[in-house]
Amino acid sequence: MRAEIISVGTELLLGDIVNTNAQFLAQELAGLGYEVYYQTVVGDNRARLRKLIGEARERSELLVFTGGLGPTDDDLTKETVAEAFGDVLVRDAEEEVKLEHFFKKRGLSMTENNRKQALVPKRGQKITNPNGTAPGAYFRQGGKFAILLPGPPREMQPMFTEQVVPLLAAMQDSAIRSLTLRVFGLGESELESRVAEYLNGSNPTAALYAKTGEVHIRITAKAESAEAAEAMCEDYARLFLRTLGDLVYSVNGDNLETTCVKLLIEEGATLATAESCTGGLLGERITGVPGASAVYGYGCITYANEAKHDMLRVRNATLSQYGAVSSQVAAEMAFGAAARAGDTYGMAITGIAGPDGGSTEKPVGLVYIALAHGREVLVKKMNAPDRGREHVRHMATQNALDMLRRQLLGLHVAGARAAAARGAGRAAGACAVRAAGGRLVPLARRPKG
Amino acid sequence: MRAEIISVGTELLLGDIVNTNAQFLAQELAGLGYEVYYQTVVGDNRARLRKLIGEARERSELLVFTGGLGPTDDDLTKETVAEAFGDVLVRDAEEEVKLEHFFKKRGLSMTENNRKQALVPKRGQKITNPNGTAPGAYFRQGGKFAILLPGPPREMQPMFTEQVVPLLAAMQDSAIRSLTLRVFGLGESELESRVAEYLNGSNPTAALYAKTGEVHIRITAKAESAEAAEAMCEDYARLFLRTLGDLVYSVNGDNLETTCVKLLIEEGATLATAESCTGGLLGERITGVPGASAVYGYGCITYANEAKHDMLRVRNATLSQYGAVSSQVAAEMAFGAAARAGDTYGMAITGIAGPDGGSTEKPVGLVYIALAHGREVLVKKMNAPDRGREHVRHMATQNALDMLRRQLLGLHVAGARAAAARGAGRAAGACAVRAAGGRLVPLARRPKG
Repeated sequence: MRAEIISVGTELLLGDIVNTNAQFLAQELAGLGYEVYYQTVVGDNRARLRKLIGEARERSELLVFTGGLGPTDDDLTKETVAEAFGDVLVRDAEEEVKLEHFFKKRGLSMTENNRKQALVPKRGQKITNPNGTAPGAYFRQGGKFAILLPGPPREMQPMFTEQVVPLLAAMQDSAIRSLTLRVFGLGESELESRVAEYLNGSNPTAALYAKTGEVHIRITAKAESAEAAEAMCEDYARLFLRTLGDLVYSVNGDNLETTCVKLLIEEGATLATAESCTGGLLGERITGVPGASAVYGYGCITYANEAKHDMLRVRNATLSQYGAVSSQVAAEMAFGAAARAGDTYGMAITGIAGPDGGSTEKPVGLVYIALAHGREVLVKKMNAPDRGREHVRHMATQNALDMLRRQLLGLHVAGARAAAARGAGRAAGACAVRAAGGRLVPLARRPKG
Repeated sequence: MRAEIISVGTELLLGDIVNTNAQFLAQELAGLGYEVYYQTVVGDNRARLRKLIGEARERSELLVFTGGLGPTDDDLTKETVAEAFGDVLVRDAEEEVKLEHFFKKRGLSMTENNRKQALVPKRGQKITNPNGTAPGAYFRQGGKFAILLPGPPREMQPMFTEQVVPLLAAMQDSAIRSLTLRVFGLGESELESRVAEYLNGSNPTAALYAKTGEVHIRITAKAESAEAAEAMCEDYARLFLRTLGDLVYSVNGDNLETTCVKLLIEEGATLATAESCTGGLLGERITGVPGASAVYGYGCITYANEAKHDMLRVRNATLSQYGAVSSQVAAEMAFGAAARAGDTYGMAITGIAGPDGGSTEKPVGLVYIALAHGREVLVKKMNAPDRGREHVRHMATQNALDMLRRQLLGLHVAGARAAAARGAGRAAGACAVRAAGGRLVPLARRPKG
């Protein structure tokens, strides 16, 4: 079935906001098996909107609108689509009560134009909005369907996922479910070549989405019941897991930092961070996970050498001999962070984020990441492509989090070298590289696979 | 003049990427005085593209295309538009040399289809691409104009700014310049009501762009020469500055963190940070500024109370008496950060980012920000609206950076209270609130205005 996405709003035409709604809906509709040939943005103008609806109805069966459902005179989508679909709008008592409650709670008096939001289709149906005042609407006429959703993404997205998806499935007497695998450690084209044979199915469908520093695989299945669709997704996911193994870091929507926080909680372990070139980004990502305080309490942003020495007890001799961007300093930073906080793990990042500070020996993008535990440490050297400071810093934290995940799961870390602290304490200083293992053996509790 | 934006690419229709090009072009075109009534996304399909060009030419004078200029068979934009505009494509020797050089440098052999990129309009002209292999193109026929640009934003944006803007100006025998004022501390609607009288001009034009936690004012002027257009922008900016005063934090494109880093450098001052609820975000923003190491070397992420005590010497009595989210703890954190690092300023943030941890007394969104200098400290209490953890954390750092900016410029900080350390050292402990000043008087070197 052909679908088309129509975004209504002058703020889009002026470029005040970026049209993330179109991307969200395009992904969702593709996953549901719809073919989308056009996305259009049009202003709050009745004549142009009416003309566009006419053209879109000619070429597509399903029209999905966002925006223009608010209380002002400019908000025209609902009445214009109703007219085009031979429907009329009627007052909805439930929506009126909800609106009155909304204004009362905020100590505001409701103006008459707000009542417009409580109008719903007579023949079609409303789509309730749990996060805002404007409900959505659904119209149908002669094999053509229109779905109207509000513009704000935090209202629109849950309405689509929770109400429109079942509605579309019901239209086709079926249930639709999807599942996302998140992959770190392979570029999109390399990943595509490895799983190419699974990307051409029609039910389930699978599609790749390249994100910064990772790739997502979205699997969607249609079946007679929700349970059957879920089982189809899971079966299909197993094909990818068999091919990709531990490159897949989550199957439930969790991002890398959430995956790590959950693993730390499971392990009863805690983490401290020490950051140079990332300047707090690793801490920021970890504390972005609600409940991270159970496993994370201390972070040191040691941008200056003195801070590395003072806060983390990195030896001045190590700094002068190897330089701040070195495996030795990374290792000492990681030991220092763990020791300072009394945490199970210490994770450190030091590198050259650019645009300046690079040299032939140590180019922009060179980053050392270290993970210390007890008297052992794992150090990984990475060379991020120089796609700007922000990119280098993001990739450094991606690699750090994946290294932590692998350690917590007892998996090998490609390109990493294990070392042990020399001297008495774990923060005692220089490390002797012990093996090219890529795993801190004493921690490899869970066998791979 | 009417313009319309046409984005070509299957990856947009599938939702693989978000259409930031449309937003960029919409903003630029609005700033240049064009009226944009439609934005369309269409796939790499000759028939649909041809039909769309026909419709767009009917209703608009200027069509701006992005995407579909690459080497593959799918890339159809150039030949399809050429045909519609009665032009033909011819080989361009300069572009061929550039392509050959590109492949040679990478040790790759150039396949024949890559040569397609070196085709340029015969009657129209090419638009060179300094950051990629595909040049853009410009077609004109009977008062209608088409501009074709490549899809990748880092290629497209500089081509538009540096080549298309002068081309459009030349079409109208004029030069166009613009200037952006950045405003912190006023919501968009409040700002709009204060400057409403300046928003309706036709030359210069001025438009508001709401960003997260700040608003930008973009002024664009058209004149016979670049110098004259610049002078018009600057004159018009003065009207806004007169009304908004120090709410405008930059006139040169600098963000808040860059503004602060430059002011610190100018002042010969240094900064240390101590973060609880923001977990490193403040440090991350400051170190996101190239060259920040000149003024920033130390940051403490003290998510746990023990970390606040251990790293910042916050007294346990203060923590237990007032709680971690309190003006007293914020003040001690700020003193502790400055003392630990030996820096001129210490900036601390402690608050409740949510979704959990809120109470009636201390709701989600409550944040205390402190800025210490010598034995003095300024503390601000803010209540961010609970629009999610990420929003609260972002607003906390916005307020912190603006507080620092105001201090460095000797400006009043609304809602802040000044205090002095009791006891011997500046990290000595509890603070007595001294006045409801909103300014650390000894630092107010520069008079306001």
